[in-house]
Amino acid sequence: MKIYRVNMSKLSFSIEDVPERWNTLGGRGLTSTIISEEVDPACNPLGSKNKLVFAPGLFAGTKAANSGRLSVGAKSPLTGGIKESNSGGTAAQRLAKLGVKALIIEGMPMDDKWYTIHVHKDGVNIKEETELLGKGNYEVVHTITSRYGENTGVMTIGQAGEYKMSTANISVKDPKGHLRSAGRGGLGAVMGSKHIKFISLDDNDGEGIEIKDKKKFDDAAKIFNKGLLKHPVSGEALPKYGSNVLVNILNEAGGLPTKNSRMGRFEGAEKICGETMHDTIVERHGDTTHGCHVGCIIRCSQTYNDKDGSYLTSGFEYETIWGFGAGCMVDDLDVIAHIDHECDDIGIDTIDTAGTMMVAMEAELLKWGDGEGILNLIKSEIKSGTPLGRILGNGPDFTGKAYGVLRVPTVKGQTMPAYDPRAVKGIGVTYATTPMGADHTAGYSVAANILKVGGSVDPLKKEGQTELSRDLQIATASIDSTGLCLFVSFAVLDFDEVFLSVLDMINAQYGVEWTKDDWNNMGKYVLTIEKEFNRKAGFTKNDDRLPEFTSEAIPPHDVVWDISDEELDKVLQF
Amino acid sequence: MKIYRVNMSKLSFSIEDVPERWNTLGGRGLTSTIISEEVDPACNPLGSKNKLVFAPGLFAGTKAANSGRLSVGAKSPLTGGIKESNSGGTAAQRLAKLGVKALIIEGMPMDDKWYTIHVHKDGVNIKEETELLGKGNYEVVHTITSRYGENTGVMTIGQAGEYKMSTANISVKDPKGHLRSAGRGGLGAVMGSKHIKFISLDDNDGEGIEIKDKKKFDDAAKIFNKGLLKHPVSGEALPKYGSNVLVNILNEAGGLPTKNSRMGRFEGAEKICGETMHDTIVERHGDTTHGCHVGCIIRCSQTYNDKDGSYLTSGFEYETIWGFGAGCMVDDLDVIAHIDHECDDIGIDTIDTAGTMMVAMEAELLKWGDGEGILNLIKSEIKSGTPLGRILGNGPDFTGKAYGVLRVPTVKGQTMPAYDPRAVKGIGVTYATTPMGADHTAGYSVAANILKVGGSVDPLKKEGQTELSRDLQIATASIDSTGLCLFVSFAVLDFDEVFLSVLDMINAQYGVEWTKDDWNNMGKYVLTIEKEFNRKAGFTKNDDRLPEFTSEAIPPHDVVWDISDEELDKVLQF
Repeated sequence: MKIYRVNMSKLSFSIEDVPERWNTLGGRGLTSTIISEEVDPACNPLGSKNKLVFAPGLFAGTKAANSGRLSVGAKSPLTGGIKESNSGGTAAQRLAKLGVKALIIEGMPMDDKWYTIHVHKDGVNIKEETELLGKGNYEVVHTITSRYGENTGVMTIGQAGEYKMSTANISVKDPKGHLRSAGRGGLGAVMGSKHIKFISLDDNDGEGIEIKDKKKFDDAAKIFNKGLLKHPVSGEALPKYGSNVLVNILNEAGGLPTKNSRMGRFEGAEKICGETMHDTIVERHGDTTHGCHVGCIIRCSQTYNDKDGSYLTSGFEYETIWGFGAGCMVDDLDVIAHIDHECDDIGIDTIDTAGTMMVAMEAELLKWGDGEGILNLIKSEIKSGTPLGRILGNGPDFTGKAYGVLRVPTVKGQTMPAYDPRAVKGIGVTYATTPMGADHTAGYSVAANILKVGGSVDPLKKEGQTELSRDLQIATASIDSTGLCLFVSFAVLDFDEVFLSVLDMINAQYGVEWTKDDWNNMGKYVLTIEKEFNRKAGFTKNDDRLPEFTSEAIPPHDVVWDISDEELDKVLQF
Repeated sequence: MKIYRVNMSKLSFSIEDVPERWNTLGGRGLTSTIISEEVDPACNPLGSKNKLVFAPGLFAGTKAANSGRLSVGAKSPLTGGIKESNSGGTAAQRLAKLGVKALIIEGMPMDDKWYTIHVHKDGVNIKEETELLGKGNYEVVHTITSRYGENTGVMTIGQAGEYKMSTANISVKDPKGHLRSAGRGGLGAVMGSKHIKFISLDDNDGEGIEIKDKKKFDDAAKIFNKGLLKHPVSGEALPKYGSNVLVNILNEAGGLPTKNSRMGRFEGAEKICGETMHDTIVERHGDTTHGCHVGCIIRCSQTYNDKDGSYLTSGFEYETIWGFGAGCMVDDLDVIAHIDHECDDIGIDTIDTAGTMMVAMEAELLKWGDGEGILNLIKSEIKSGTPLGRILGNGPDFTGKAYGVLRVPTVKGQTMPAYDPRAVKGIGVTYATTPMGADHTAGYSVAANILKVGGSVDPLKKEGQTELSRDLQIATASIDSTGLCLFVSFAVLDFDEVFLSVLDMINAQYGVEWTKDDWNNMGKYVLTIEKEFNRKAGFTKNDDRLPEFTSEAIPPHDVVWDISDEELDKVLQF
């Protein structure tokens, strides 16, 4: 395999050999390694010294199910620390087919021109782009498909990325031509700072990937794939209801953060839950289940149509529905679907935009429950880059500062997602301590706290939470390096043979003899370099803390955040 | 003396004895001590845990000339670190006459009501205020004078403080009924967060201050006062031209930061310099020289009238004229005077507002040189708290982030003032290392670099600059604790007997036997607790760095910033 490196200051390109130390790194492990090795932690995230790295995972392009996630890495303009955000879509598998282990974009143009990058088997072409500037992601994908054909991969930014907003994401075209996002941390702003509107991918005649022991790999992949379908979460709940199955579960558990985390239950939950969504999709002839990338067998995605049966959005996730729903007190699924569509099109993260809207409601820019008002702010302000749009597009902390709001639901500037840290304490430990800023996917303690997967830890008590989060953060850093979807974790955690099949696939593909220790060490290594990058970027212990309001009791369980600073400081000390 | 403590959560008040350890502390030394001892460094500066402290200096209320500066301290919403900002006006001397060593305001109201605090000999009254909400500082001072009489002190915030903007200052009524400002660091936002519109001061029948050895004090004060008048800077240049005498001097030196620090000389300097200003004031029958507080004998202030001879502004300082002038390429002194008036009225710091306007010009919100455009943004946007006003009112870093501008002239979020750190390297060391964020007054190396006061150090070479800045930062921390105007430093630095008279005054007033070492130790102590507060607030070495653009050569001398990180890190290690 090889490294494609693009320099936007010189508008030049090079193909490099993969350094040996990067051989068994992929996905997050590789993006975080490259950022750590090559980026000055003190640099301005939107300046010429930052780099943007795209890396498929270790299993990209193989028969392993759900192995097509794409990792994107940079120093984040939202958190100020290192960031990996991963996405579905077709890009990771195309890069793998081209034999590209990482695409590194560095420098930035000295003038005002904008560019596109076309990636193919012989390298890349850098071309000036004018036509698609100012356009949304749906139009970009549509136009590129017309320009280069259906079988072209796309990674693109919407208007928000052009404005370099800290909530801007990078969207990736999926098999249906819809959008998947590397959502968190403002990586779209980094792409915008380098004046790249989109990257197109042509994997024709790519050299492909190498698998040292194909038979062994295929045998392991069979066990792996079977295990995913056997588990009740990845085999039943997610295919039927999508991730939004969680609304009722978290509401019941009293951990659904409602009205900017004032309550753990939302009166309108029934109207926005996965079961309601499923019935609505069926009724409107949408699609209740499909994958975000080829080879996904969990198929938690769906197509949500409007009342007339026309396409409205897809990849309509629990966290989005929670955020604009319970978080903002909106109980209208159609309005939330509209908001999701607009966020995807403009290219802004739904979780951080939801957090921003909660802050806007605190500031009385909007009334609680005003979904149409949210939609209007997104369409009229953020999309156009008005002054108010510039405020909102830069996220909850920025909006809070603009309006003097103290109740801002973030850690390291990133919005706490759909699980209240007081009522689901394990996820609170993850929010506080992950180098990524508040991120449920960085150590999904909800599994053992609520779903009773991979063990059982009482969500309301502090006992066992730090250990739970640490173990999951380590495992997740490894999973994120494989390019496997995080939803494989349920089976990996509960079924020994599935975990062992992952190890077998690594060993078979790369000709190594990894043990469980090597797997854990990969996770620890990734977390260690990420923590170290953040330390050099200026992070201190203060950054590993939850917002002050978590000292208030949250109903119905009237629990407070009670895990001490000292306990938090030990979580990622290996 | 005593401490007045106001709790805005409980709307309660107490009078406390002065702890013995605070006896020989005043001004900055006392505000920084109280903030360090009582405020959680990790707290939100606009939350209930921050405190706002007003403290006259050690010599307030005495016959020592120029001893009426008021220190205001808090955790800064602009820098995120500890802040002391001092101001002229009549408040310090009134507090001294009341025997109040510090006024501490803590907590914040739980509801939306706003209050005023009336300070008198028996304590304070906290009253709800509605009439003056939304009004500018000039109207507040005028109204209070009508309400309580001419002889009432006022400390007030304008609209910006009500909006909790990070550039909001606290204005203090001066002897002419005009405004002086504790300008930097957003202390007006802290006052606004506590819902205090203004503080009025009635010093009638105050117990006054105690001087242990009055004769000795008076003798020393005579030497001190005489020394100030003998020095060419404080005795001649400042009274005649005000601080704006520096435009021509810095322009000549190639250290006048022009067009957001792209050049060290400004073509329009002649039109905005102190000499032109002096002639204009004379021609329009303004006042060329008066003091900002009773007992000032340097009298660097002036009243600047408009073309019709009507009052336009006073306290029209070099840094203001530089910032909106050379910094933004505006060469019209009348427009700058208008801007100064509006900034004073709305209650925003002129240096940080100038820095913000430079960033706005980088973002193409305004054209370079468009003084009317600046005035319009201040009057139409900041004053009204529009979304754009919220962006601009929160300072240069905030505006830079909103618009993706990289060239932002700040350290710790605070604008570098009117001396380019590449062409006046000693001040660059101060900008980088002072705990206050970029601040020329924290260690005015310009003295030895340019004015050849207190020694002579080549401004363009790196040799000797760190030592120069360190010594001056120590001396300044002590001076700021006495309540003496920083302009006494020229005589203190150049004339031994003036320095010794300061020591004699401390010893006479407080019955101690301080040596030069004790004086230096006071400065080192203040800097040490400030640095420690900042460390606990999350500051790292990265925060002690100049902006990246200082690696570009600045004409006419084509010098770059070349003092290493390692050298900077040693400056305040005692």
